[in-house]
Amino acid sequence: MNKKALLHSLFHAESVAVVGASENPQKTGHKVLKNLIDGGYEGKIFAVNPRSESILGIPCSKSLSEIGEDVDLVVVIVPAKAVPGVMREAAAVHAKGAVIITGGFREIGNTALEQKVMDIAGENGIAVIGPNCQGINYTPNKLCASWPLITGRGSMAILAQSGSVGAAMSEWAAEEHVGFTAMVAMGNKSQTDELDLLEYFSEDPETRVVALNIEGVRDGPAYIRLVKKTVERKAMVVLKPGRTDRGSEAAQSHTRSVAGSDKVFQAVCRKLGVARAMGFEDFYDAAKILSMLEKPAGRRLMILTSSGGSGIIAVDTAVELQIETLQPGDSAVERLRACLPNQCVLRNPLDLTGDTTADRYVTAVEALTDTDFADSILLIFADPIEGAAAAAQKIRHMTGKPVLAVFVGAGEVGKTETLLMHERGIPVFPTPERAVRALGALLESGIPAQSREDRS
Amino acid sequence: MNKKALLHSLFHAESVAVVGASENPQKTGHKVLKNLIDGGYEGKIFAVNPRSESILGIPCSKSLSEIGEDVDLVVVIVPAKAVPGVMREAAAVHAKGAVIITGGFREIGNTALEQKVMDIAGENGIAVIGPNCQGINYTPNKLCASWPLITGRGSMAILAQSGSVGAAMSEWAAEEHVGFTAMVAMGNKSQTDELDLLEYFSEDPETRVVALNIEGVRDGPAYIRLVKKTVERKAMVVLKPGRTDRGSEAAQSHTRSVAGSDKVFQAVCRKLGVARAMGFEDFYDAAKILSMLEKPAGRRLMILTSSGGSGIIAVDTAVELQIETLQPGDSAVERLRACLPNQCVLRNPLDLTGDTTADRYVTAVEALTDTDFADSILLIFADPIEGAAAAAQKIRHMTGKPVLAVFVGAGEVGKTETLLMHERGIPVFPTPERAVRALGALLESGIPAQSREDRS
Repeated sequence: MNKKALLHSLFHAESVAVVGASENPQKTGHKVLKNLIDGGYEGKIFAVNPRSESILGIPCSKSLSEIGEDVDLVVVIVPAKAVPGVMREAAAVHAKGAVIITGGFREIGNTALEQKVMDIAGENGIAVIGPNCQGINYTPNKLCASWPLITGRGSMAILAQSGSVGAAMSEWAAEEHVGFTAMVAMGNKSQTDELDLLEYFSEDPETRVVALNIEGVRDGPAYIRLVKKTVERKAMVVLKPGRTDRGSEAAQSHTRSVAGSDKVFQAVCRKLGVARAMGFEDFYDAAKILSMLEKPAGRRLMILTSSGGSGIIAVDTAVELQIETLQPGDSAVERLRACLPNQCVLRNPLDLTGDTTADRYVTAVEALTDTDFADSILLIFADPIEGAAAAAQKIRHMTGKPVLAVFVGAGEVGKTETLLMHERGIPVFPTPERAVRALGALLESGIPAQSREDRS
Repeated sequence: MNKKALLHSLFHAESVAVVGASENPQKTGHKVLKNLIDGGYEGKIFAVNPRSESILGIPCSKSLSEIGEDVDLVVVIVPAKAVPGVMREAAAVHAKGAVIITGGFREIGNTALEQKVMDIAGENGIAVIGPNCQGINYTPNKLCASWPLITGRGSMAILAQSGSVGAAMSEWAAEEHVGFTAMVAMGNKSQTDELDLLEYFSEDPETRVVALNIEGVRDGPAYIRLVKKTVERKAMVVLKPGRTDRGSEAAQSHTRSVAGSDKVFQAVCRKLGVARAMGFEDFYDAAKILSMLEKPAGRRLMILTSSGGSGIIAVDTAVELQIETLQPGDSAVERLRACLPNQCVLRNPLDLTGDTTADRYVTAVEALTDTDFADSILLIFADPIEGAAAAAQKIRHMTGKPVLAVFVGAGEVGKTETLLMHERGIPVFPTPERAVRALGALLESGIPAQSREDRS
């Protein structure tokens, strides 16, 4: 099988064995087995531990070969020196893939041991993720073979070289119910690297956004070819630290790979329509908005807010990103005046003031929809406004335009409404500046834009 | 009494009456009374409500005058049209201050009603905060007269024109145990504005940082005079949206005040050593770091990290802010090599790798302290590393240098250690980029820097 087919078998594994499963809830070998179960995996789950009878209700085998049947995917959490033996056993049970969570290989200088493991994998046609990684998730298969628990189904595939980037994304996404199709912690990228994964996820029908975190590019021309292929069908955002010369030096020390010129990398991103993230929050926000929204037909943004101050911050950020915040025309202002309380400020940002209800947002947009007033809509809820999610959904339905939201300083109501919005595919950001920067990433991306209907 | 003395009486009130106290837990009149009690206020608390016997264990009076004794501070949460009557009663009980939470005045066009209230206050020498605000807090007096509950004692005074800014700051600070001396929601700034509050807080002995959010400056020369006075004794950060022309137009519509040229405003900030925040997160992060750390003696930053990728992002951000990340010298590298495991990358950022313990951070800094290696230290914990707070405290003690930290992707351990660090005055940020930007604000501020001892 070629690599792509092997990776397909790995993500769609029909049986998984956790080698190094543990009874101790503190151990990774316990957490991964638990996450497989809690993630709702519907294939067969096996646990391998020579000293336990059963763990979490799963009977234990002493070794992979003792299972007595073939296993598609082997998750390895045993000490590094034991991994070659496990890989030989994996070959014996005809495993198609192995996720090696175990560390202690090239990253601490044990290059020969890592090579030995990869040789066994190569000879036996086993796809390997890792070693030295947090594992993988593939929600369409309810496969959570990682120590962070990821169960939310979405449309973004996060491919992370940095364990901390992967962990942060998982944590933030779980907190606010943002889903994934996949999370792949690449670890040492010994056999499977970003090129293999781009090849795979560029064709994965469940994935709409590929969010790639890398620290260096091994093969520039191949990278460009695969990014081109990916952006034909998917939105893409990249976090590649080492943007500055000093940062690039640090990246080279860290990954021992050639980082290359960042200017060239940036030019490639821009030319191919790949959004470039500058840090953790940017990366997460861009992946989130790309996974939920279509690209607006143009750069015109209409802002509705319960807080004047928040609206101004949104405008400042929009101006800096060349996002237009045009004023409503005279007829629109007349219609707004007819349906909104006196204190509302009938501009863009449209300040509905602190006593607004969620319905007032709907009323205002209804008054605007006769005109082609904007290409996207930002709803800022800077108060505990109940029913905001339902209102946002109505506005999206009425206008057909991409709708994004902010909940800030809104306590428990804000948290609850945020989850409701995410479940309905409306991205929510914690501040106006982050919302507008995310919109900037959406506009920067090379995905096809909505067509602009002439409604005027 | 002059305004400053009146404000002193207001923040140090020895008795407080909540007029419009409510039995309904959903109402602001209930929340404010409850927060006064839960905040541990040690003065007398009175509740005024003509239709209740007692609320939350506090006996109710039918009116202020029925209380039968003088009241220092009156918190007003009755409908707007009833406020003039309450103010006359406040005068009768010799109130020195009133916090008018009630909205429905100038912000919705009721300018005459607002003027009437201010006239009564002026004639009777009552200092007024608001109307149309969330209230005030002054933790040295355990006075929480606002609907967000703020109890954490710290050293920052937040003076917020935008209700959403105040609410966001309160929420974030409460979540991660960052304390305040004061939070003042200025609301309509009808009688008390940023100038009065700068005058007051520039001399408040409990306050170390003044974090000011305004949308316009009423009196430029007075503003400059008071900022000069403030920065002589305090650190200061300002969030003034309307940085762009379009944003400034929006600010003028919102507050109906002249925003003035942002270039001039920016030049004043720079000249006087006031950090300028660009948005909500910047403002919070800057206030936090300024409230906890001394200004480093210089721009040299040493980064220690458990995650290579996070370290590189920190370096990128540092380079962009002209913060230096010098490499350790040969002798320092030798000492590091002698005490750290092989896999550690002995540079700046010093990559202690994913298997690091908290102690390894201490060991590394011990190896560095013979040399004058940096002016501040950033500890990045990108894994659930227990004991991080204790290690950070040791490092601060050993070096005497400002220490800041990042916890990212570290789950519950990260949350717990963050609270411990904040209790010990070590600021923690959620990403490396935000930590370094906060350090930038600290370096930008005009407070006196630590002296640099020549240790080499």
